[in-house]
Amino acid sequence: MSAIHIALLGYGTVGKGVYKTIQTHQEKLKNIFRKDVKVVAILVKNIEKHHAPDPDILLTDDFNKIVKLEKLDVVIDAIFGKNPSFTYLQQAMNKGCHVITANKEMFAYHGTQLKQLAKEQGVTLGFEATVAGGIPIIQTLRQLLHVNTIQKVQGILNGTSNFILTKMREELYPFETALKLAQEKGYAEADPTNDVEGYDAFYKAVILSELAFGEIPNWEDSIRQGIQSITPEQIELFSAFGYRFKHVASMEKTAKGILCTVKPVLVNETHPFYQIEGVQNAVSIDGDIVGNISLQGPGAGMFPTASAIIEDLVYINKHSFSPIFLDEQNELSVKAFKTYWAIGGDVAVENIPSHIPIINRINPNFLIVEASWEEICSIQLPNVYLYQVLGRVLPEKTLVRS
Amino acid sequence: MSAIHIALLGYGTVGKGVYKTIQTHQEKLKNIFRKDVKVVAILVKNIEKHHAPDPDILLTDDFNKIVKLEKLDVVIDAIFGKNPSFTYLQQAMNKGCHVITANKEMFAYHGTQLKQLAKEQGVTLGFEATVAGGIPIIQTLRQLLHVNTIQKVQGILNGTSNFILTKMREELYPFETALKLAQEKGYAEADPTNDVEGYDAFYKAVILSELAFGEIPNWEDSIRQGIQSITPEQIELFSAFGYRFKHVASMEKTAKGILCTVKPVLVNETHPFYQIEGVQNAVSIDGDIVGNISLQGPGAGMFPTASAIIEDLVYINKHSFSPIFLDEQNELSVKAFKTYWAIGGDVAVENIPSHIPIINRINPNFLIVEASWEEICSIQLPNVYLYQVLGRVLPEKTLVRS
Ligand SMILES: NC(=O)c1ccc[n+]([C@@H]2O[C@H](COP(=O)([O-])OP(=O)(O)OC[C@H]3O[C@@H](n4cnc5c(N)ncnc54)[C@H](OP(=O)(O)O)[C@@H]3O)[C@@H](O)[C@H]2O)c1
Ligand SMILES: NC(=O)c1ccc[n+]([C@@H]2O[C@H](COP(=O)([O-])OP(=O)(O)OC[C@H]3O[C@@H](n4cnc5c(N)ncnc54)[C@H](OP(=O)(O)O)[C@@H]3O)[C@@H](O)[C@H]2O)c1
Repeated sequence: MSAIHIALLGYGTVGKGVYKTIQTHQEKLKNIFRKDVKVVAILVKNIEKHHAPDPDILLTDDFNKIVKLEKLDVVIDAIFGKNPSFTYLQQAMNKGCHVITANKEMFAYHGTQLKQLAKEQGVTLGFEATVAGGIPIIQTLRQLLHVNTIQKVQGILNGTSNFILTKMREELYPFETALKLAQEKGYAEADPTNDVEGYDAFYKAVILSELAFGEIPNWEDSIRQGIQSITPEQIELFSAFGYRFKHVASMEKTAKGILCTVKPVLVNETHPFYQIEGVQNAVSIDGDIVGNISLQGPGAGMFPTASAIIEDLVYINKHSFSPIFLDEQNELSVKAFKTYWAIGGDVAVENIPSHIPIINRINPNFLIVEASWEEICSIQLPNVYLYQVLGRVLPEKTLVRS
Repeated sequence: MSAIHIALLGYGTVGKGVYKTIQTHQEKLKNIFRKDVKVVAILVKNIEKHHAPDPDILLTDDFNKIVKLEKLDVVIDAIFGKNPSFTYLQQAMNKGCHVITANKEMFAYHGTQLKQLAKEQGVTLGFEATVAGGIPIIQTLRQLLHVNTIQKVQGILNGTSNFILTKMREELYPFETALKLAQEKGYAEADPTNDVEGYDAFYKAVILSELAFGEIPNWEDSIRQGIQSITPEQIELFSAFGYRFKHVASMEKTAKGILCTVKPVLVNETHPFYQIEGVQNAVSIDGDIVGNISLQGPGAGMFPTASAIIEDLVYINKHSFSPIFLDEQNELSVKAFKTYWAIGGDVAVENIPSHIPIINRINPNFLIVEASWEEICSIQLPNVYLYQVLGRVLPEKTLVRS
């Protein structure tokens, strides 16, 4: 069986996530491509820190060795910064390789040039991972909305600043405390400027603008405002009236060109961003025919980002293969998933078998329990209402019986 | 210039929406297809009720006349019921036409057969409009998530029942009153069974299951429960604790096959469906690599549904044309959009120019006003905090000065 040969630039969070996903999804990839998918080379900066996950893989700190490989089909860019990434991808394309990148800073600056070069070289360029991690917003704009004219795009595009705002509201932390927590959790870098001052969201806004409007915003005219000056007092005040602060990137086409702003705004419950909490991302699109649609999901992280890159691999190879049908889905292992249930009516704590935790007693006649469907069916009660509960329930605050 | 010849089956809400969109988007369609897009025939049931929107269009109640047309490329199905729709689409495919359908009942029953026939005939089948109106959930599953194994799909797939539940909570209406309101607004049919008992959502669940899991649920084993028995008292009780009722379709792959349920469940603020109100729809997908992503948007209506159909037209024609670049977006007309702003700090009602409505005074130091960006810039105040407010603000409850 022939193979698709891949070089990974960078072997950090994203690079490792891609490698692992290719390993765990070999069978599925083979079904889709009718070829093996093989990582043949990995580029790193400090070669002493690393060892190759497989002896057949070339681990190197010299990109020249990679670009000279005889068999190389796809180069995946998971390193940081405008350069050398841009140069490397140009070299790869000039050699006829398809390219996938997760590097938003580089792509915000050089995306237009890379798209042009890809056209000239007849290769394909994937950049789903540059914006909003696992949310397929790039491909939705690229593949699913052609006739609609996009009028406006808004997004919560930086998980770190959204996490900080969420913690400031939930715990009434000052900005510095919430930032420290984000750093402890590995969401924020030692230098958090990129995230909290809106540079990272702005890079993503540039990439989305070009896709949605065919034009990038004027960098000088754009407004970029961070979240550092928001105080717990302001947050508390607005919370009481149903408003939350969100750090929102907004792009709109105007007579003067693309108007792009990244700034903290207030949202209330009627807006799809109200509920976007923690490191989640969301994007809302206004199309002239469809109206408003929004997407939400994980904005970053090893596997969500790997997912975006791996799905781009399919996009790249779409033209070379026969139509893909989804009837080759793997069999799932069956789990007796536990979930929450509200039980109401003639029901007392004593009626619930003792191995089932009671999370919450809403009132004398309603209990919330945690149980599998099988366990729920085993409770024999007349005159009972039963509703499944979706969403996270916080037992620590309300636990009746564990 | 050659043309794409289209027959519309049905000229009601959806059929008219498609016709109007094709007319208003002629230029854009021409840019994409490098062909004219022409409606050449319209099928209706009661021909006396209608007149052709253009004298060149064949308006008929006889499908035979349509299928015999010499030039016919695409048949768009916007009629009701399993038949004659199924028969008509088979005839169209056998003639070599591509087919797009909005008819979820027919597609839930006969989708598998139509997909098979499309494969045999080498034609393409679009069915985005059958599920969740303008939300591109079908194409997201079909085109954007190939490597991910879908583990679970959940959706609010019926706008009518969601509207009823929203009104019951907001106004504490009993079910019957909320249903009557839905009928007055044109959301619910005279016979609301399809919507409130979950049949409509179940058809959509069947269509999504086949796409996500390559398998349809066992119709007999599936659980379908309506919303009629929910009382305002239950709703009030759970609201007080942060729970809302939602009518949710849920599909999961188990050892016994696809488990499909449509039933009212409780969701709290941590779940993406909490905020889905009124006639909105939403779909949440769990993929093994990406984790959870959700999409929300308009679940029905003339133009959202037309959008789904028109974008399917692009999908159908993708193989026959060179790659589509989105740099041909139309110029938007510029509007001085009014929006809401929270102004805080040293600000009194008297400081705000009298033509700017003050919607809400959050506390002595914070006002919410409605104004364009230009108007906001014209307010000259020192020491002022300014945040834009996203989401609907209800002035009737709080108006300070109009
Ligand atoms: N983390 C996420 O969730 C996420 C999401 C979307 C996009 N991204 C983007 O993906 C890229 C990688 O992010 P990451 O989180 O994986 O970073 P990371 O964990 O810091 O890993 C970066 C990797 O790139 C290598 N590298 C950096 N500069 C290099 C150079 N000049 N030449 C060769 N190798 C170099 C590093 O080598 P050493 O290990 O030898 O230092 C390291 O293996 C960034 O552009 C980021 O913005 C990340
Ligand atoms: N409305 C929505 O928002 C929406 C959204 C998604 C999907 N859909 C689906 O789209 C389809 C159409 O919905 P709609 O709201 O447009 O319905 P509608 O307004 O009632 O229009 C139905 C049209 O189909 C024609 N028709 C019905 N049966 C026919 C038959 N046997 N032969 C020829 N013509 C026939 C009717 O002709 P006459 O006018 O002569 O009676 C009418 O023009 C349905 O399958 C529906 O489930 C609707």
